[in-house]
Amino acid sequence: PANKKLLILPGDGIGPEVMREVRRLIDWMDRRRSVTFEITEGLVGGAALDATGSPCPDETVAAAAAADAVLFGSVGGPKWDSLPFDKRPELGILRLRKDLGLFANLRPAVVLDALIDASALRPELVRGLDIMIVRETTGGIYFGEPRGIHVNEQGKRVGIDTEIYSEDEIARVARVAFDLARKRRNKVTSVEKANVMQSGRLWRAVVGEVGKAEYPDVELEHMYADNCAMQLASRPKQFDVVLGGNLFGDVLSDLAAALTGSLGMLPSATIGALQPDGRRNALYEPIHGSAPDIAGKGVANPSAQILSFAMLLRLSFGMDEDAALIEQAVERVLGGGLRTADIMAPGMARVGTTVMGEAVLREL
Amino acid sequence: PANKKLLILPGDGIGPEVMREVRRLIDWMDRRRSVTFEITEGLVGGAALDATGSPCPDETVAAAAAADAVLFGSVGGPKWDSLPFDKRPELGILRLRKDLGLFANLRPAVVLDALIDASALRPELVRGLDIMIVRETTGGIYFGEPRGIHVNEQGKRVGIDTEIYSEDEIARVARVAFDLARKRRNKVTSVEKANVMQSGRLWRAVVGEVGKAEYPDVELEHMYADNCAMQLASRPKQFDVVLGGNLFGDVLSDLAAALTGSLGMLPSATIGALQPDGRRNALYEPIHGSAPDIAGKGVANPSAQILSFAMLLRLSFGMDEDAALIEQAVERVLGGGLRTADIMAPGMARVGTTVMGEAVLREL
Ligand SMILES: CC(C)[C@H](C(=O)O)[C@@H](O)C(=O)O
Ligand SMILES: CC(C)[C@H](C(=O)O)[C@@H](O)C(=O)O
Repeated sequence: PANKKLLILPGDGIGPEVMREVRRLIDWMDRRRSVTFEITEGLVGGAALDATGSPCPDETVAAAAAADAVLFGSVGGPKWDSLPFDKRPELGILRLRKDLGLFANLRPAVVLDALIDASALRPELVRGLDIMIVRETTGGIYFGEPRGIHVNEQGKRVGIDTEIYSEDEIARVARVAFDLARKRRNKVTSVEKANVMQSGRLWRAVVGEVGKAEYPDVELEHMYADNCAMQLASRPKQFDVVLGGNLFGDVLSDLAAALTGSLGMLPSATIGALQPDGRRNALYEPIHGSAPDIAGKGVANPSAQILSFAMLLRLSFGMDEDAALIEQAVERVLGGGLRTADIMAPGMARVGTTVMGEAVLREL
Repeated sequence: PANKKLLILPGDGIGPEVMREVRRLIDWMDRRRSVTFEITEGLVGGAALDATGSPCPDETVAAAAAADAVLFGSVGGPKWDSLPFDKRPELGILRLRKDLGLFANLRPAVVLDALIDASALRPELVRGLDIMIVRETTGGIYFGEPRGIHVNEQGKRVGIDTEIYSEDEIARVARVAFDLARKRRNKVTSVEKANVMQSGRLWRAVVGEVGKAEYPDVELEHMYADNCAMQLASRPKQFDVVLGGNLFGDVLSDLAAALTGSLGMLPSATIGALQPDGRRNALYEPIHGSAPDIAGKGVANPSAQILSFAMLLRLSFGMDEDAALIEQAVERVLGGGLRTADIMAPGMARVGTTVMGEAVLREL
């Protein structure tokens, strides 16, 4: 079979460290499972800024568009914190989402039995938790125009952003959520503030229409964003797939992740539309950030980056078996008692990034 | 002293039931503590819709403006769920906020020792929790123009809302937060998405300026909204006062409330600017909604409404002693083992609205 083209963007902070463990995993797959990837590495975030003056150089966007999948690390750090708005390292990920049309962010929030004590919630409330947040990522208030800060007639500064969603934008991300629900527990909770926002009213209407016309077999529930935050923090197991716009999805997916207590374990995918040739742009990244405070110390948990790679194998390359092998290896390592600092617990063995990565390889 | 003018707006659902317990408390104060209130009752929400065709009739707004304080119940219910946008019962509260200039919503999230087991979080994470969320309530995306749903050139529906904040709007609510922090643990966490929103950039700048110029003694921290949701759900005790715009404040205050596990206990205040004559418009309401599912059954917890009245006595009438008496009475009732259904726990005595209200009176 043709080689799979993979673009790797380690980025900043702990990005390069945790990515190194994925590279070793890929080497192992090359040798043992005779899969060959065609790998390019690119610049993004602060690393790209330093080298090229742009947090997301055109070459990176072009390489991402040409790749079959992108594996992303993380961007940002104090060094670049006081740069002007159009130089922020975050633009690395924002521009990739927009330019590649990566409109649906898939964020699993899963509590593994081995890590149940990492959650801030009582164990009985999160045992077996398995939520999938689907967040719209190319529209809404992140990109809407007009936006900016101007000075009004009274000489006062005014900040403006525009939340804007068209029915097509809503419908296509809703379909992603419904499709996922069908393979899971068949329930979608769609989140907005239809009681105060016009885009929320349209969101609710369109998701309802798509559900009725195309997914009558999937249970659909509408929930206000404030209530959803409450429900997540008190009875999270009521949810299967949670669907939200760019802004609510951002806050609620992080909330759901925090409930698991193990941010260092959680992968994510951001996918584009299925193209006529069967291709689909997709980017995979751990949900943890660049964690500048621990960068370079060799203590970061590589699991989320490794599991992001597994998610990539499954969703972009159809390599379900290999993905499952990797996921099981990570679980077995945890079962064996190894823990990085972020998920350390009494009685476990504390290890660093490399030992954790090696342990996963050994399990394979 | 001149009689205090109090407007009572019971609203819908459990509103009238829990308000009845406050009325009994007021009767007791009339008799025992020789305080006389001049009470008017008004219509709001679905009740007002049914009677007048408007969820917030002009007479209600006028009565609220003329009162020294407003005690609000809750609005909404399935009966009014499918009404057009401009007839929603929610307009009752939204119009009162806007027309009375109630720009700062104060939402304490407190975990009482007696109710520590009600929280979904592990007891050690929430013991003694005492957060104050300050939310802007007359600006932002709730009211910004343009807003609406229109059909574009391609014949597709598009929903639009505008997030807009001026520096004055930000500065005045920031001052409320800083002032509160000075009477508490001297720390303000200001929340926005300055990494993606222009209004967020302005928010961060203005709060920073006000802090530096007027409150150099108060610790100020800036946090992105997604991170704040994470932190609330994992290490809530790091917060003292949390300050946010209308939309983030809505979601995060509900999240903080949910962490306590006792929504039926939590009051709130929404206050306007201090006027030259020393008056300040203010509205007090429990944070729970109208709870149509249990309305009329006599099982609702009247505590949040009673504690909203205590907050009113303290903030609007300067009656600190009476407020404290009521708060202590509520705590003693809980200490004595009485529980309404919402906070029921093993070994406690389950009671209804009236018995709970009577127990508070007895403690007084
Ligand atoms: C880095 C930032 C721009 C980004 C966002 O807000 O989308 C992040 O929080 C995320 O969720 O990927
Ligand atoms: C009823 C609704 C309009 C309101 C809001 O979103 O502000 C409510 O959620 C609140 O927080 O008071």
